[in-house]
Amino acid sequence: MSSRYVVIMAGGVGSRFWPSSTEARPKQFLDILGIGRSFLQLTVDRVRPVVPIENVIIVTNKAYFDLVKEHIPDLPEHNILCEPSRNNTAPCIAYAMLHIKARSGSLASFAVLPADHIILKEDQFRLHLNQAFDACENNSAIVTMGIKPTRPDTGYGYIQLGDENTELKKVVAFKEKPDLQTALEYLDSGKYVWNAGIFIWSVTTLTDAFEILYPQIIETLNQSPDAYNTAREQAYIDEVYPNTDAISIDYAIMENADNVFNIIADIGWSDLGTWDSLYDYGSKDHNGNFAQGGPAVIEDVVNSIIKTHPKKRAVIRGLENFIVVDEDDALLIYPKDKEQEIKASIKKF
Amino acid sequence: MSSRYVVIMAGGVGSRFWPSSTEARPKQFLDILGIGRSFLQLTVDRVRPVVPIENVIIVTNKAYFDLVKEHIPDLPEHNILCEPSRNNTAPCIAYAMLHIKARSGSLASFAVLPADHIILKEDQFRLHLNQAFDACENNSAIVTMGIKPTRPDTGYGYIQLGDENTELKKVVAFKEKPDLQTALEYLDSGKYVWNAGIFIWSVTTLTDAFEILYPQIIETLNQSPDAYNTAREQAYIDEVYPNTDAISIDYAIMENADNVFNIIADIGWSDLGTWDSLYDYGSKDHNGNFAQGGPAVIEDVVNSIIKTHPKKRAVIRGLENFIVVDEDDALLIYPKDKEQEIKASIKKF
Repeated sequence: MSSRYVVIMAGGVGSRFWPSSTEARPKQFLDILGIGRSFLQLTVDRVRPVVPIENVIIVTNKAYFDLVKEHIPDLPEHNILCEPSRNNTAPCIAYAMLHIKARSGSLASFAVLPADHIILKEDQFRLHLNQAFDACENNSAIVTMGIKPTRPDTGYGYIQLGDENTELKKVVAFKEKPDLQTALEYLDSGKYVWNAGIFIWSVTTLTDAFEILYPQIIETLNQSPDAYNTAREQAYIDEVYPNTDAISIDYAIMENADNVFNIIADIGWSDLGTWDSLYDYGSKDHNGNFAQGGPAVIEDVVNSIIKTHPKKRAVIRGLENFIVVDEDDALLIYPKDKEQEIKASIKKF
Repeated sequence: MSSRYVVIMAGGVGSRFWPSSTEARPKQFLDILGIGRSFLQLTVDRVRPVVPIENVIIVTNKAYFDLVKEHIPDLPEHNILCEPSRNNTAPCIAYAMLHIKARSGSLASFAVLPADHIILKEDQFRLHLNQAFDACENNSAIVTMGIKPTRPDTGYGYIQLGDENTELKKVVAFKEKPDLQTALEYLDSGKYVWNAGIFIWSVTTLTDAFEILYPQIIETLNQSPDAYNTAREQAYIDEVYPNTDAISIDYAIMENADNVFNIIADIGWSDLGTWDSLYDYGSKDHNGNFAQGGPAVIEDVVNSIIKTHPKKRAVIRGLENFIVVDEDDALLIYPKDKEQEIKASIKKF
């Protein structure tokens, strides 16, 4: 059990949830639900019953090192791995793998989790996580935890599953974000799950996969394997990491591996990728408003997200289906059903 | 000429224009039109060609002493008179009068001007101001500068004028804010002007008026006439001023005096008492928006007042006829046609 690790990917820059999320304060460090814990804290809390904190590794950008320490004060400092550059997920996971290998050898296993998702059914999640660890330790299997879809969402990638009648189903293919018609077919078929970016594997299995499917990354990062888990790890990583290809783990490994198995997870998951999904998950008042922040007088406002500044008073009246977010450095007032155009609006600055 | 003074009343607490105007930063100190000068600065600038700065007296609350110095750096410090308590306009004007008397004697004359109005036709205003000084110096007259009405406004008090065919018309009566029907009759008759709170008189005439019509104030303030214009003036005022009745100059003097004359002024005046009046006077873009503040992307917004925070970015979309004001300590988002209800909303905090 002590050679099980959880690797939390916390390097994202948070282009969504503007203006609450910014490059200096990305989503994983926000308590956007207003429950007193950031996404990163919730993610760590969620796995504490599964692995000791010493086996929780957080991979992040150097710029967020202090934020990670502040959010998870009991995390050993050397469990924070800092990417010197943003090279997408495959190099990031390979780095964590090599670090774990240096600490616990090739038989160690680890789960990769995004730092900014929510999971309401945590017991069920942990049950599946342990099942996945068992599976990847007992087989040369790459295990994914795909989410049982609840709607024909066109915003997620899908994982196509085999027909076998077992808990662990062979993955047939990874599918890009579908159009609505395709998403409806996926949902009806019962053979597709959402790709939540949750992967579980042993160091041996993933090393093999990298060596066969995408050797450039592991060759670049493993020139001095004895640098890992030493005082010179960071300097070494600073030198070699920027030279890896920048590619996602999906493209580099998952889509081409033939030993991927999935556990279907019905765990109350959301990636909370949009204000609207926050609205869906957050608790609303009798006017259908998700309201948070400082003292506010809100009148004739319905079905809106109202996130006022905690240190300011706000008087807001006469809005329907709006997003209002007041942060230190920016103010957003936007129709909720136009959310997907916020990015385009921001580009006009 | 050197015994002509201008007294600017700058003690208001600014209950309108929330949240831009607050008790700590009332309207007279704001550059709400975005033209680079506060209302107080504009008011002083406006009279500089009429009297030397040494003869400009600003009466304000003690709390605003530093703000006045900051806004009018060339004003001699002893020209800032500080009320220790808010006792309405009659005691305030009586204090200024006694101060001027101590400096220049009973033959001095002075105009009283609000600090937070705008006047677009300044030359015309100054012409009338000089006419008023002449009139009050040559007669025992109290002179008001009433504004020629341009609409049946129910938000102002009116001054009823006599029939005589002279520049200076006898004031028949002061009228409270009328209902719309009455305001229409006033407008049609051509015999009424708006009371803009602009009064001009000599020290002698006003002293007589106080002694006859409201002696309590002058008796309270003039127990030690030799304290004025000395180092102990402030201590003396701190002691006696709070003991005067708190009453407006209109009630104490104007409505009961029989020697009030008016000069009809067509001077592009507004008291800018509402966000809507600011909207009317401010310059609007092609979408009919009065927009000010920091960098902003404003889309599908029409006929609105958008005053964003100068140090923040703002993305605002999909509003019509709104007031949006983002200040350090408060945010307002409110339908423009409901402006009169903002006060009631604020009371709900």
